[in-house]
Amino acid sequence: MSKSESGSNKMWGGRFAQGPDAIMEAINASIGYDRRMAPQDIEGSRAHAAMLAAQGIVTDTDAEAMREGLLTVLSEIEGGTFAFSTALEDIHMNVEARLTEIMGPAAGRLHTARSRNDQVALDFRMWVRDQCDAAIDALPRLIGALVAQAEAGADWVMPGFTHLQTAQPVTWGHHMLAYAEMFARDLSRFTDARRRMNECPLGAAALAGTSFPIDRDMTAAALGFDRPSANSLDAVSDRDFALEFLSSASLCAMHLSRLAEELVIWSSAQFRFVRLSDRWTTGSSIMPQKKNPDAAELLRAKIGRIFGAQTALLMVMKGLPLAYSKDMQEDKEQVFDAADSLMLALAAMTGMVADMTAEKDNLEAAASSGFSTATDLADWLVRELDLPFREAHHVTGTLVRMAEEAGVDLPDLTLDQMKSVHDGITEDVFGVLGVHNSVASRTSYGGTAPDNVRAQVARWKELLA
Amino acid sequence: MSKSESGSNKMWGGRFAQGPDAIMEAINASIGYDRRMAPQDIEGSRAHAAMLAAQGIVTDTDAEAMREGLLTVLSEIEGGTFAFSTALEDIHMNVEARLTEIMGPAAGRLHTARSRNDQVALDFRMWVRDQCDAAIDALPRLIGALVAQAEAGADWVMPGFTHLQTAQPVTWGHHMLAYAEMFARDLSRFTDARRRMNECPLGAAALAGTSFPIDRDMTAAALGFDRPSANSLDAVSDRDFALEFLSSASLCAMHLSRLAEELVIWSSAQFRFVRLSDRWTTGSSIMPQKKNPDAAELLRAKIGRIFGAQTALLMVMKGLPLAYSKDMQEDKEQVFDAADSLMLALAAMTGMVADMTAEKDNLEAAASSGFSTATDLADWLVRELDLPFREAHHVTGTLVRMAEEAGVDLPDLTLDQMKSVHDGITEDVFGVLGVHNSVASRTSYGGTAPDNVRAQVARWKELLA
Amino acid sequence: MSKSESGSNKMWGGRFAQGPDAIMEAINASIGYDRRMAPQDIEGSRAHAAMLAAQGIVTDTDAEAMREGLLTVLSEIEGGTFAFSTALEDIHMNVEARLTEIMGPAAGRLHTARSRNDQVALDFRMWVRDQCDAAIDALPRLIGALVAQAEAGADWVMPGFTHLQTAQPVTWGHHMLAYAEMFARDLSRFTDARRRMNECPLGAAALAGTSFPIDRDMTAAALGFDRPSANSLDAVSDRDFALEFLSSASLCAMHLSRLAEELVIWSSAQFRFVRLSDRWTTGSSIMPQKKNPDAAELLRAKIGRIFGAQTALLMVMKGLPLAYSKDMQEDKEQVFDAADSLMLALAAMTGMVADMTAEKDNLEAAASSGFSTATDLADWLVRELDLPFREAHHVTGTLVRMAEEAGVDLPDLTLDQMKSVHDGITEDVFGVLGVHNSVASRTSYGGTAPDNVRAQVARWKELLA
Amino acid sequence: MSKSESGSNKMWGGRFAQGPDAIMEAINASIGYDRRMAPQDIEGSRAHAAMLAAQGIVTDTDAEAMREGLLTVLSEIEGGTFAFSTALEDIHMNVEARLTEIMGPAAGRLHTARSRNDQVALDFRMWVRDQCDAAIDALPRLIGALVAQAEAGADWVMPGFTHLQTAQPVTWGHHMLAYAEMFARDLSRFTDARRRMNECPLGAAALAGTSFPIDRDMTAAALGFDRPSANSLDAVSDRDFALEFLSSASLCAMHLSRLAEELVIWSSAQFRFVRLSDRWTTGSSIMPQKKNPDAAELLRAKIGRIFGAQTALLMVMKGLPLAYSKDMQEDKEQVFDAADSLMLALAAMTGMVADMTAEKDNLEAAASSGFSTATDLADWLVRELDLPFREAHHVTGTLVRMAEEAGVDLPDLTLDQMKSVHDGITEDVFGVLGVHNSVASRTSYGGTAPDNVRAQVARWKELLA
Repeated sequence: MSKSESGSNKMWGGRFAQGPDAIMEAINASIGYDRRMAPQDIEGSRAHAAMLAAQGIVTDTDAEAMREGLLTVLSEIEGGTFAFSTALEDIHMNVEARLTEIMGPAAGRLHTARSRNDQVALDFRMWVRDQCDAAIDALPRLIGALVAQAEAGADWVMPGFTHLQTAQPVTWGHHMLAYAEMFARDLSRFTDARRRMNECPLGAAALAGTSFPIDRDMTAAALGFDRPSANSLDAVSDRDFALEFLSSASLCAMHLSRLAEELVIWSSAQFRFVRLSDRWTTGSSIMPQKKNPDAAELLRAKIGRIFGAQTALLMVMKGLPLAYSKDMQEDKEQVFDAADSLMLALAAMTGMVADMTAEKDNLEAAASSGFSTATDLADWLVRELDLPFREAHHVTGTLVRMAEEAGVDLPDLTLDQMKSVHDGITEDVFGVLGVHNSVASRTSYGGTAPDNVRAQVARWKELLA
Repeated sequence: MSKSESGSNKMWGGRFAQGPDAIMEAINASIGYDRRMAPQDIEGSRAHAAMLAAQGIVTDTDAEAMREGLLTVLSEIEGGTFAFSTALEDIHMNVEARLTEIMGPAAGRLHTARSRNDQVALDFRMWVRDQCDAAIDALPRLIGALVAQAEAGADWVMPGFTHLQTAQPVTWGHHMLAYAEMFARDLSRFTDARRRMNECPLGAAALAGTSFPIDRDMTAAALGFDRPSANSLDAVSDRDFALEFLSSASLCAMHLSRLAEELVIWSSAQFRFVRLSDRWTTGSSIMPQKKNPDAAELLRAKIGRIFGAQTALLMVMKGLPLAYSKDMQEDKEQVFDAADSLMLALAAMTGMVADMTAEKDNLEAAASSGFSTATDLADWLVRELDLPFREAHHVTGTLVRMAEEAGVDLPDLTLDQMKSVHDGITEDVFGVLGVHNSVASRTSYGGTAPDNVRAQVARWKELLA
Repeated sequence: MSKSESGSNKMWGGRFAQGPDAIMEAINASIGYDRRMAPQDIEGSRAHAAMLAAQGIVTDTDAEAMREGLLTVLSEIEGGTFAFSTALEDIHMNVEARLTEIMGPAAGRLHTARSRNDQVALDFRMWVRDQCDAAIDALPRLIGALVAQAEAGADWVMPGFTHLQTAQPVTWGHHMLAYAEMFARDLSRFTDARRRMNECPLGAAALAGTSFPIDRDMTAAALGFDRPSANSLDAVSDRDFALEFLSSASLCAMHLSRLAEELVIWSSAQFRFVRLSDRWTTGSSIMPQKKNPDAAELLRAKIGRIFGAQTALLMVMKGLPLAYSKDMQEDKEQVFDAADSLMLALAAMTGMVADMTAEKDNLEAAASSGFSTATDLADWLVRELDLPFREAHHVTGTLVRMAEEAGVDLPDLTLDQMKSVHDGITEDVFGVLGVHNSVASRTSYGGTAPDNVRAQVARWKELLA
Repeated sequence: MSKSESGSNKMWGGRFAQGPDAIMEAINASIGYDRRMAPQDIEGSRAHAAMLAAQGIVTDTDAEAMREGLLTVLSEIEGGTFAFSTALEDIHMNVEARLTEIMGPAAGRLHTARSRNDQVALDFRMWVRDQCDAAIDALPRLIGALVAQAEAGADWVMPGFTHLQTAQPVTWGHHMLAYAEMFARDLSRFTDARRRMNECPLGAAALAGTSFPIDRDMTAAALGFDRPSANSLDAVSDRDFALEFLSSASLCAMHLSRLAEELVIWSSAQFRFVRLSDRWTTGSSIMPQKKNPDAAELLRAKIGRIFGAQTALLMVMKGLPLAYSKDMQEDKEQVFDAADSLMLALAAMTGMVADMTAEKDNLEAAASSGFSTATDLADWLVRELDLPFREAHHVTGTLVRMAEEAGVDLPDLTLDQMKSVHDGITEDVFGVLGVHNSVASRTSYGGTAPDNVRAQVARWKELLA
């Protein structure tokens, strides 16, 4: 770019008063964020150097010097002694410039049969793959914390809500395991995404491949890919792998936000279903009993940030012709931020779940109110007395009103009272009333019965082992 | 709901002047759209009836009457003779009411060990699964159309663009196959999504399972599911399966929008890279040569609609406590509309690609301008003369300027002219100049060489066979 | 479009088995939804006809026949006797064809100096303007309902929450008026949007204006616009007016979702802060005490739908070159659906707020727990005893712990107990303890004191009068 | 928060191996980004101090020390000598701690009658207001650059596109001014947003107001607000002002993306409608003629980032109960990033437009192809010969085909040829054929005629003066 002589305040004003050069630097320099890909960049270059030598494209001596020099660069970066330069724009050029200082002009041969297009596609893909691995590593921890809660409270009774109104009693363990199912699906989504993106773009060069006799299988294998990508245009121009990571992260964040919402509501003075540990809450200097569920709230919000990133990148990619356009430089910061948000949220949720204490008595009391076993009564009438549904519902409604007027719950009615509504009712009915009886009876596969929960806990522990 | 006596214009005004009843009907009635799930609803109920009989929960006679009656209802719906009632709110109640008319009150026993919650979860999941199947069916057709174009034009040369500027020549076939790769990944995403969602929620009942001795494996198998879902709360309260469908659809629509954008640009008078058939364009009564690429434009827009649906549903689900909340009723219309948009876009794109004619001469002329083989020259200098990169670039730049000043392209320079810049250059250099030489030389795996394209075409044809 | 002879199942499969014609009809026909703009279309055409006559472009006789004929068409549409034709694609052509039937070929002159581009831009803009008016009409009703609640409960005490934990007592009226402020800002956003969009595109013709001597001021005035738009390209190609409506609707829906969330939480058995009327809740046949806040939940979800529409349309418009592209046909359904959702949500919220009953005792009890006046005590120590903040907080914290250990609240401590912590404390301190004292003391402008609330109620009533 | 003794690798893994403390620090510390609000924070505190003194709540001496000390802190921050501390979490506490070092414990009195809730609401609102001002400052510059282009090319002819196909000729100036209209509406949106948000939240305290005798009118005036906010709950809990800024920014970015898309297409070798200056493009070392429109591409992408921020924040706010929740801490980074993106995009677009050169001849040649004046011919037949529309279209179509077969454009046909199709045609017809005649004839208000453009240029110059 030709140097600007202008830069008059009048034209630019505000934060870009210094004119075009400052603007173009802000547009072009990515080193401020893409330095995070330094390990991937160096790993990719080392594999490329080894392949170039194996194929006789560079000498073994040069290749060895490149590989050693790159390790030196990496240790400088990791050690914090590397001097990043904005003038060198991006991580690739920063690394290359330093390598040239270390080993001399032969460093330039590292760029043989490679372009910045396939290099950045490689680095970014490896970075995103690492984030998939991080999620694949973190989710079992979270599931494990849920399973531990489920095991402890396999038979604790709590309200099963619809519309935030008590509908039927369920067990604490069952509720915890509902989230284990969700997070396990998230885990499998990250696994699928990782598998699908695991094709190596290195060797696509600028966009058309290369005439050098490279061995793409060798670099692909060295970098842990399943295979080289089959079309060079596709390799440098698509970002669906990053978008699939973001989609999976959004779904996971959606599940996290639901659990976080429950933790916030359950921590309220009105619910008191759960006590979060001091580690995950903040207090007030003058109201010592106040425990603000900050961590839960913040991670309830993270879905916004993660899905915002997905929105941003999808909108960027929409309608872009092949192959490379500068628009695509906007991909990285979004994914970096979303990945950081997800990892923070997963770690915080794992900690909160591991540390939290269910208020068993409050849960049971809440489950026991609101005639929550009315459905059990109706089902009993159908099952045992063979009443048609309509009649069973009518009888149940009458009994609930009777209990309500008497200020008691259903199990507190006497058999005589019950028989006054339908004389087929027997002593056995009490076996399904009361919240413990209710949950114990729900033994259908997937149902909330404590034995089911224990069986599922065993299954999960085996899976996580 | 108690009947409203109010409804004064003053309070409600506008389109809800008739008051609360009209508003609540608008809130509660879903029959206007969920009738689309009638086939799934009836298939699910028939499987449930068979299972209830097999487990001795209803009599064989009743079950048979249910199953027959449901077939009658289905044929009425498919025949257009079914009278849908808004007062009955949704498809489930419409079907049930008609079944009762057909077979009498024993129809009510169909609802044994089932709730509207697991019923709607089942119907919707089956509907979404059908959409995955539709995408899995449609995408190979589109890939096939691209492969046919690639086969025809394996060696036609066109510009490979970066920044919509010619960067290097590529082949038409290679460009077509880049999209084949993208759509194949979309296909695999729908396949993964389908597999992941293929767990049967039926039997989760309201949210806690049931005390009836149901056989969930039997219904799951009858309805083509891999297994029953393992947690009843999860089964009725999550919608991640619908969101994963929408995510996959958004990514696919992103790819479609990119190809559509290219078709619009390529159809312009300035590019003339492609001629779309009359089937997919509209004209002007007074400008007969004008061919508006309406279909391409409309499907370029469809990503907005599909991603809008994903945004909507994710925002609805964000922060919802378990298990069921009325908010979730907003799930269906979004998915219905997105699925319709996707299927329309896939069909239209398949047709456009199949029918379009590449303007081979224009493509080659465009590829041949702009010194598009400068990179080939620089690579040759590195490869054959062992020049360092920096010097190879310098020599190439000088030659390009020489050609530019002479008003010719690189292959038109004489050997003497070339030697005047670097005397190591030999006659062989002409073997890499010129766009046909250039593309032929890019034989690295994934590169644009015609032979590579033909090999990939063969692979695709085998895969699609 | 040339007729398709193909349509083989093999190519199209699935729902488009009938081939290209069916696909293009699905792409082109908008009459299924744009018939909603019939009144706007006809009003616009009538104004255009009158102007054409006034300018001598058509005869008075023809213009009168057009204007009469259009009224006939309108009454047919409103009466439900109009036969819409999909073959005629859109509302404009449907109206024009019927007008031709009514008055003969002179109907064609209505299209003089007009194009479908400015016609659709006009119709859609008028439709959106009507939606602004509907919101501007509905929001004061909602504010009025909130103000009525505020007036009734100007001095009822409830918890002011942070983190869903009681922080300080506030008044019910103050909480209601917080939403009045938000909805008033929404109202002003719709007003601004309406004003900004109120420029008439009619006369822009296809995109370049016209050579006929039209009078755009006349049509603009006849149709209630402030002025004709100043640039014909802009007039037919921008949709920012629709996007601004959607943005304003999204913000309004965000506010509605917050109030709806509170209503859902407040209706839970654990909170019991509010009782929604039967009109806005649904029940259970066997659990008569269950009141599901369906309306609140559904409108909590509407923000997803509305913002999804905004996302969709913005993504469609992103990066579209001027002037008209078929992509823009996707604008209407999104806006129609979002406007319907918003109007339904506003009506439902207005009804819910008007009908709901605050559970005054529960609110006060909740406000009185958790040492919610600790801040008042600390402020008193600073204000009256001139203690530094740090010391005031220390003293307060000590007193709170003392009360907590004694199982009482702050106002229940004796003066002696207080003096044992800081002997400067006097009898006066009790004047700020207790939730009623606390709220009464917050008399700063905008504070929660009942007198403030009453003053604000008076202000609102004046504004709404 | 109690210190964590745990932090076992097993539990945390990955990037949070050091356990809960690291996680909570990541959750709580905002100083990494909210330091950008330091000027606003200090300005707000200085106004608060002055008011506290004026009301006798603190002594004049203390207030003066606060105000001086705050200036010192500001100069330290601006001078880069301020030592930010993560342990102090946010900008407010960092400033307060330093102030205490400077002036001693009396600094604590600055917090009288104020809470972090209203302080952060104030700082953020002032920051967003500053961004509105920046946009209000930048947009006229951009409009000015467009107007300058329009003035230079008021009568240059270019194609007016529909579907990226030439539809009618327009003038370059008219096309430029279409964008001036759009950006002027954007400007008015920022103006409206600024006015609406210009209420001062200071004095809302934690959420309920305060019992100190503060003067909110005084602080509001000192800080440039129109008035204090009328409801303390609303003041601390809403973020619609930030969302309205983001909405306005998204619409502006949508307009920018459209113009950027045109610049990218117009810069292609196929179009060559415009030459961007070297300042705003990047080149290739070996293809010196390549000018990549990087700046245009990057700002075409910025809408993704800005709208992603809007999506994120709206999703965060959705369904949040009043008053403050930790979720809201996610508001700032989104707005900071979006504002930076917008300002960069506005500056870059202003520069590109100011520097670009229209390729006048190419524009005219493109406009002259494709029988672009066919509409003019049809209009002439209607206007001058009083032909019915249908017949005028038929005659025109026939003439276009005649010209097409002859390989000429419409103005090249002879009068005899024309008369052979319709013998009423006279010599006058040539007055509307040809692109210059065509644009000159479109004199309706808002039409593309050069005189119209010049009149609009004059209007804009007056407005911008």
